[in-house]
Amino acid sequence: MAQKFISLRNLKFLLYEVFDIEALTRYPYFQQHNKKMFDLVLDAAHKIGTKLLYPVFEEMDRKAPRLENGRIKVHPQVKTILKEFGEGGWISARFSEEFNGDQLPLLAANACWLIFCGANYSAAAYPALNAGAARLITSFGSPDLIDTYVPKMLSGQWQGTMALTESQAGSSLTDITTTATPAKNGSYRMKGRKVFISAGDHDGAENIVHLMLAKISDAPAGIKGVSLFVVPKKRIATGGNLTPNDIVVSQIFHKLGYRGCPITELSIGEKDDCRGFLVGKPHRGIAYMFQMMNEERIGVGTAAAAIASAAYHAALDYTRERLQGRRLSEKNPAKPQIPIIEHADVKRMLLFQRSIVEGSFGLLMQCALYEDLITVVTDNEEKKKYKLLLDLLTPVAKTYPSEMGILSTSQAIQCFGGYGYCEDFPVEQHFRDMRIHAIHEGTTGIQAMDLLGRKLVISDGRAGLLFIEELKKTITAARAFPELEPLAEKLDSAREKLQKVTFQQFAVAGEKGPETFLADATLFLELFSIVAIAWQWLLQAIVAQKALGAKLSTAETNFYRGKFFTCRYFFSYELPKIEGLAARLEENNPVTMEMEPALFND
Amino acid sequence: MAQKFISLRNLKFLLYEVFDIEALTRYPYFQQHNKKMFDLVLDAAHKIGTKLLYPVFEEMDRKAPRLENGRIKVHPQVKTILKEFGEGGWISARFSEEFNGDQLPLLAANACWLIFCGANYSAAAYPALNAGAARLITSFGSPDLIDTYVPKMLSGQWQGTMALTESQAGSSLTDITTTATPAKNGSYRMKGRKVFISAGDHDGAENIVHLMLAKISDAPAGIKGVSLFVVPKKRIATGGNLTPNDIVVSQIFHKLGYRGCPITELSIGEKDDCRGFLVGKPHRGIAYMFQMMNEERIGVGTAAAAIASAAYHAALDYTRERLQGRRLSEKNPAKPQIPIIEHADVKRMLLFQRSIVEGSFGLLMQCALYEDLITVVTDNEEKKKYKLLLDLLTPVAKTYPSEMGILSTSQAIQCFGGYGYCEDFPVEQHFRDMRIHAIHEGTTGIQAMDLLGRKLVISDGRAGLLFIEELKKTITAARAFPELEPLAEKLDSAREKLQKVTFQQFAVAGEKGPETFLADATLFLELFSIVAIAWQWLLQAIVAQKALGAKLSTAETNFYRGKFFTCRYFFSYELPKIEGLAARLEENNPVTMEMEPALFND
Repeated sequence: MAQKFISLRNLKFLLYEVFDIEALTRYPYFQQHNKKMFDLVLDAAHKIGTKLLYPVFEEMDRKAPRLENGRIKVHPQVKTILKEFGEGGWISARFSEEFNGDQLPLLAANACWLIFCGANYSAAAYPALNAGAARLITSFGSPDLIDTYVPKMLSGQWQGTMALTESQAGSSLTDITTTATPAKNGSYRMKGRKVFISAGDHDGAENIVHLMLAKISDAPAGIKGVSLFVVPKKRIATGGNLTPNDIVVSQIFHKLGYRGCPITELSIGEKDDCRGFLVGKPHRGIAYMFQMMNEERIGVGTAAAAIASAAYHAALDYTRERLQGRRLSEKNPAKPQIPIIEHADVKRMLLFQRSIVEGSFGLLMQCALYEDLITVVTDNEEKKKYKLLLDLLTPVAKTYPSEMGILSTSQAIQCFGGYGYCEDFPVEQHFRDMRIHAIHEGTTGIQAMDLLGRKLVISDGRAGLLFIEELKKTITAARAFPELEPLAEKLDSAREKLQKVTFQQFAVAGEKGPETFLADATLFLELFSIVAIAWQWLLQAIVAQKALGAKLSTAETNFYRGKFFTCRYFFSYELPKIEGLAARLEENNPVTMEMEPALFND
Repeated sequence: MAQKFISLRNLKFLLYEVFDIEALTRYPYFQQHNKKMFDLVLDAAHKIGTKLLYPVFEEMDRKAPRLENGRIKVHPQVKTILKEFGEGGWISARFSEEFNGDQLPLLAANACWLIFCGANYSAAAYPALNAGAARLITSFGSPDLIDTYVPKMLSGQWQGTMALTESQAGSSLTDITTTATPAKNGSYRMKGRKVFISAGDHDGAENIVHLMLAKISDAPAGIKGVSLFVVPKKRIATGGNLTPNDIVVSQIFHKLGYRGCPITELSIGEKDDCRGFLVGKPHRGIAYMFQMMNEERIGVGTAAAAIASAAYHAALDYTRERLQGRRLSEKNPAKPQIPIIEHADVKRMLLFQRSIVEGSFGLLMQCALYEDLITVVTDNEEKKKYKLLLDLLTPVAKTYPSEMGILSTSQAIQCFGGYGYCEDFPVEQHFRDMRIHAIHEGTTGIQAMDLLGRKLVISDGRAGLLFIEELKKTITAARAFPELEPLAEKLDSAREKLQKVTFQQFAVAGEKGPETFLADATLFLELFSIVAIAWQWLLQAIVAQKALGAKLSTAETNFYRGKFFTCRYFFSYELPKIEGLAARLEENNPVTMEMEPALFND
């Protein structure tokens, strides 16, 4: 049996009880779904996680992909996984019926990806990349491009990738130098070099379809001159056969974790024979990418939270079984040792992990719900509101699980003691797999500038005000429950502090310009994130308190009481961290601005 | 040339300018040393780090030890390293002349180990284990034991180990079940199983000498029945030949990091033919171990701080070279990209690392100085004072670098972006090597209970009062410098807060007993540690301010100004973290005590 890596009960609690996914099925777009079907979907996803992905979790890490004769060999299970994800409709689940998709709400789809990534992040990355790349084509590509590429990607026969990064253009996509020269039949001749391309080549798929950023000759300088292309590894020759398209894998990167999926360097058009096909209009590449970015970044947060979940459940199981030590008041060494889960410090470490995992799940589902509502609501004001909230919370939903997941998986190791440091248990791999998420799809520093410098500023700061309204609604609702009253007051103080700090940052922007304004954006993001997760915990605690009002089985009572305790933990141990962050942000002492690089010399 | 992994300038700053190691040479025990010799020692250590250890840093990780036909094969360099450390007098440096040692102050010795561990932690572990094991024998063993084992250990021919842990007795050494039955000639017949024994077997040494905890038949129950033995892998037969002593390596552990050193499981006395030799008196094993524990735990902190130093210097070099992005005020994409060290957020990440590394170095050297003073001062009151301060600060010096080192090496990865996640750069290995330190030689939870439940309580809390006196002295000294005045005030507030929180914890102990008192000991340790590191930074800043009063070269000015800025960083970004910790500790809300294990079910 697979080690437990996720709680289905918790996923259903979030979907049905906290976020009321059933309400979405009242909209025509989602009307073919119902609770019974969501249950079936979750159970089927869990079966795939348990039977298809988890069994190769360790093996895909230990037997990492290798570059042999110009081709990357991956674990043989990858081909099966892509096929099963294609045939089972998991890659196309979110697509509309037009593309033979299921029109599954993102709420439900993300719950499934939490399961998949919790079971085996590297394995889940292959089909996830397909879904993202295909979605770019269906959203902005021509009918011809869609017909040629999308069905094979959704079926899992071909692998999709995102080919953005170059060695000199990581955080700064402005500096992309891959070129696209107009050629015959409306195609382009591609030339350049891309690095860090996940699943950029492998033998588990018949073809690789790169969604590639490049600059058309004579494009405007900078970010406004970047276009998006479909660039297949093998193009379709006249007659329909696949023929090599002059893309060479020049390197495979050996990594700390995420080892089951090959990260590649690609050399494009060395022989001047690589064809690319423009997606949408010239010079709109970055705009297209960013229109899809919310979902991609929520995907990163989802993966991070899922890995933290797997590590948490492994630690939880272990601390229940592991006997070590006695109560501090027990001085008789002849008495048997107790399970370490009975030690307060171990419970603290478990509550820490649980609060991060399930708090992150909440925020990720909140974002998914906004995305789903954007898809279906017809009122423009309402749509705009959800859009602003989603845009605002996306850097938080990407970063909080990614950063706190490092600490959470680290605490999982700590729960195992020395055994946690050994490969005999899965947590050391979780710790390694986790570390990529604060880097890819925009580093934490980039997310922080996005939140403070962009999302809170645009539309006269309306997104921030909407967020405050959401907090206030939850605070008001919580006040109706005596047990939650003190927590409601704490969140209200935190809200006030957040507003105060935010306005002060804006004042800095006005007085001192963008550099000083954004110098501590990462700390601001951390403060904002803690408040957002506290909000999510209070939402969950409200639902739990309501449920506890009825007669319940012991298991159900324990579940809801556990929710309430984890919420209390978060408010007692995590929320106070904003005090130190606010103290720093409110201080007028630009240390990092004044520090000259030469002063690092010694 | 080796990647820079440590700053010699900084080590000399700490030794000569902050801790005045030269003053120690006025005591007879250290009188053969002088500044010139310390310089030579440091330079020689740096040469060993650069030429002997660093070149195999990566290779010892990638080609990890393996168990073959009952013998562990390690990297061939290990034998050379042990030999060079033996012949060069590095293993015996701290030993007295009686054992052909150099009577080197721990201050200087630890500076050398910072260099060795920064160059290659796994490699440094072998000779470090020898020094610790030999020291146990010279401190408590019979002349016969000393003559037989110590010279071969100090010369690096034989490997010493600490064989404490058993699978059911990790944090709880009370539960050791390895037995020692009296046999002929005063020896004992040993039987049992030990796990996680570092360097427990390998082909780089002619023999392995285990310092092993076991219980003599009919010993008192629990911790008071544990004795210490020398148990060699090969014992000396009549005639002087080495003959197998019935110890079998039953397993080698594959680990996240620290891979260059084998961690073993040993099966002892399977054929009832394993002889052990009692060290000191029966049933005193734990007391002996704990008398050496300060130095061992400071050794762990030293290793952790050294690894963080290596990662920091790698990140620093990289951020100076790596071009990415432009100033936020620069909108022209045709302008060249700038080194990322010029971005405020990157400077913040570097200052974070530097503040942890050099702040930890300071505290470790402070502890080493106390240890050295304990060795030489003749006044009993003075000796007692240093002993109390050392005992108090040891769990901090062990834990702060080990816990913050996880974050510091993680930030080093972040400075590299995607490249940091790849094996092409050393920081991913530093991140892996680091993670053991919060576990071995007593986990963070154990250290926290030691600080709050023991060190602050014994002798009517005198240690805590002495520490407060030290803080006050530094605060007063800092007030003499206008630039340091605001920092002095901040530390004074922090001191007050620490005292308040401590007294409140004592009140909890009186009202609610030990379990509630120690439930949040880990948070208390964190708070205490931040104050201790702030104190160390202020000490360093005072020295820097004094130095800046004189005419200096640009390099020297930059060094001292860099110190001042890093101190400012610590006081602005790290010290405020005590606000949140104090808020939690002052709260009367025993969440983790009330949380029942069943509530984790779902």
